[in-house]
Amino acid sequence: AIHEARLLGRLHALGQIGRDGENRLTRLAASDTDRAGRDALVGWLREADLDVVVDRIGNIFGIWRTHANAAEAPLLLGSHIDTVIDAGIYDGCYGVLAGLEVIETLRAAGLTPVRPIAVAAFTNEEGVRYAPDMMGSLVHAGGLSVEEALASIGTDGTTLGAELERIGYAGVAEPGFLRPHAYVELHIEQGPVLEREGVPIGAVATLQGISWQRVVMEGTANHAGTTPMSMRRDAGYAAARVIAFVNEQARKAHDPSVATVGCIAFEPNAINVIPARATFTVDLRDPDEARLAAGEAALAIFLDEVAASEGVSVSVERLARFSPVAFDAGIVALIEQAAAGRGLAYQRMTSGAGHDAQMMARMAPAAMIFVPSLGGISHNPREHTPQADLVAGANVLLDVVACLADA
Amino acid sequence: AIHEARLLGRLHALGQIGRDGENRLTRLAASDTDRAGRDALVGWLREADLDVVVDRIGNIFGIWRTHANAAEAPLLLGSHIDTVIDAGIYDGCYGVLAGLEVIETLRAAGLTPVRPIAVAAFTNEEGVRYAPDMMGSLVHAGGLSVEEALASIGTDGTTLGAELERIGYAGVAEPGFLRPHAYVELHIEQGPVLEREGVPIGAVATLQGISWQRVVMEGTANHAGTTPMSMRRDAGYAAARVIAFVNEQARKAHDPSVATVGCIAFEPNAINVIPARATFTVDLRDPDEARLAAGEAALAIFLDEVAASEGVSVSVERLARFSPVAFDAGIVALIEQAAAGRGLAYQRMTSGAGHDAQMMARMAPAAMIFVPSLGGISHNPREHTPQADLVAGANVLLDVVACLADA
Ligand SMILES: NC(=O)NCCC(=O)O
Ligand SMILES: NC(=O)NCCC(=O)O
Repeated sequence: AIHEARLLGRLHALGQIGRDGENRLTRLAASDTDRAGRDALVGWLREADLDVVVDRIGNIFGIWRTHANAAEAPLLLGSHIDTVIDAGIYDGCYGVLAGLEVIETLRAAGLTPVRPIAVAAFTNEEGVRYAPDMMGSLVHAGGLSVEEALASIGTDGTTLGAELERIGYAGVAEPGFLRPHAYVELHIEQGPVLEREGVPIGAVATLQGISWQRVVMEGTANHAGTTPMSMRRDAGYAAARVIAFVNEQARKAHDPSVATVGCIAFEPNAINVIPARATFTVDLRDPDEARLAAGEAALAIFLDEVAASEGVSVSVERLARFSPVAFDAGIVALIEQAAAGRGLAYQRMTSGAGHDAQMMARMAPAAMIFVPSLGGISHNPREHTPQADLVAGANVLLDVVACLADA
Repeated sequence: AIHEARLLGRLHALGQIGRDGENRLTRLAASDTDRAGRDALVGWLREADLDVVVDRIGNIFGIWRTHANAAEAPLLLGSHIDTVIDAGIYDGCYGVLAGLEVIETLRAAGLTPVRPIAVAAFTNEEGVRYAPDMMGSLVHAGGLSVEEALASIGTDGTTLGAELERIGYAGVAEPGFLRPHAYVELHIEQGPVLEREGVPIGAVATLQGISWQRVVMEGTANHAGTTPMSMRRDAGYAAARVIAFVNEQARKAHDPSVATVGCIAFEPNAINVIPARATFTVDLRDPDEARLAAGEAALAIFLDEVAASEGVSVSVERLARFSPVAFDAGIVALIEQAAAGRGLAYQRMTSGAGHDAQMMARMAPAAMIFVPSLGGISHNPREHTPQADLVAGANVLLDVVACLADA
């Protein structure tokens, strides 16, 4: 069994890094607070005597290899340690620190696995500062060139490449250098299913599709008091119509469809000036590719309708687009066996969130283990998973790893 | 007749002060750029040999008084030189500089008016940084205490009092020290009426009511991918519904009702996080007080409905509330006579925008002269009035002043 106090201690320690004056936790990718989190992680990887490698996109790997197994493809565990704004402490960090914990536990037990075992912390999984999300694992898996990724422009106008240089995490290894035999990611569910069902372990078999777009609507700035309603080209009102549409379309669709407008800005953003420009993001998700595409198509039609009726122009930039993924059936079954072996209830499920495993599935057999999120709350400081569930998940990971590392 | 080149030269010179790297003109009240604009104005007032007085709220007065008339109540002209974000060059500045121009013209003509004549540049007419708008003239007229006004907190968290100190325009004169015999303000229309009618001079008889509110809706931040639509408390979607309602309500009302949401912010404002908080402004205007109040009441009811149906909380802060104003019939008639005397077409009209004259009407007979705005565009860098109209308006002001200063 894993060393509970060590895992939970590190999780809480990492959760203190990157708090602002109001005690809000924010470690956006390649920011100063991300650097502080990375420094802590690298310290623990070195203490555990792992080989630490940083690649050009800033992914951090801690590798346990022996003379005997160095020629074999490693088993890779991992997740991410970047966060959203005003985040919880579990999202991502749990999987990285549990991966490290499992390696240390196996080594302390004197095991000599057939394959090396490594743990990765992938860069910019959240996608809040730079799009797309899951960027580090996407680059690792060859789905995006490292040059394009490094040139990505953030919400603050910075480029990821310059920021990685600045924080000292622009490594030299070529992304993809580590070609895993298999990839396993342990993560909090971030949704309400496991808690509702009273089940501690989810064996994640599928992950829904994700569509991210940035929409810019342009009208005409004019005086709020003197401009008759009929003479307005109000980009803000046009945006409001789209936000309402996107939400109502998802409500009307089948239950799993979701839609979110999380970011918005008006220009000039003055109380008595009709907005000349409204910029907002649209996040659509669906486990069904055809339904996701239909949602995108309906949005495109509605944007044209609003543009015509409100006299505004519309431009759309695609920030991320990933189809639904099916994970490796063998590893999913192994997760179920491991849970059963520990006497833990489990269920097969889908993931509502995007994860690095979704990208790693492009290059190796991959699957995920979920543990419950209280109240289904995530991307919120109240994100919480009971300690018993955190420990149970890490022990299931331990058993899955012990099996896969010898396969 | 006024000295055209001097007036237009100063107008264009002032319009160059406060431009950013992208050539956008922004002189928000009590900012560094406002200071630069104020310094230029004070320079011109001193060159014209006027007594310059700055009061505690930062209003600037240039006073022409003689030994003979110093005991009489002065005739006051004026407007403001603060601007919105990305502004045009005419809004406000035209009235201040034309007031100065009229004084210089009368003095150069050797006139010895029965009353002193003064020109004022009132602080924070726009209300973009600090609310309410027309703040300096409101304080001058006794409608708001100077202490309350100086404590006003800006969109950037500063207080007006500290910012006025910082830019060196926290004067010592007590607001209201100058009790005018009458007040006349020349301004661009900022709306489409005069151009549409082909009339160069508007005699402004009324000014519509203004209601400004800031609305905060609070929901729950949660993950955009994992949170079913039915479990969301999405403050951004709730805000979008209100923005759409406010606009559609004004469209359905009688023609002159207008409604604008000019400012918005989501928190945490991240692409994959359901907004926990949406903050936005509502600007409602109506020439009819009962209809304005009905619009506010309908908004309040709709806010409660949305709060209940979306599971969000709502709080509303009143930023400004001014009832419609009727200007002095005698001065309005004088404006019409002056236009007729110069062979200029004129029409009696209402003002869609708020103006300092609206506040000054509380303490003295007041009225306004309007000149056309091309395309009805204002609060936009494309705001424009042809030179002939600018000159005509200033000459009408000259004739009105010549008459009132001897009354
Ligand atoms: N797990 C997680 O929160 N990933 C961030 C990417 C997303 O799903 O929005
Ligand atoms: N004239 C003018 O633009 N005033 C600003 C106050 C307002 O009407 O919004």
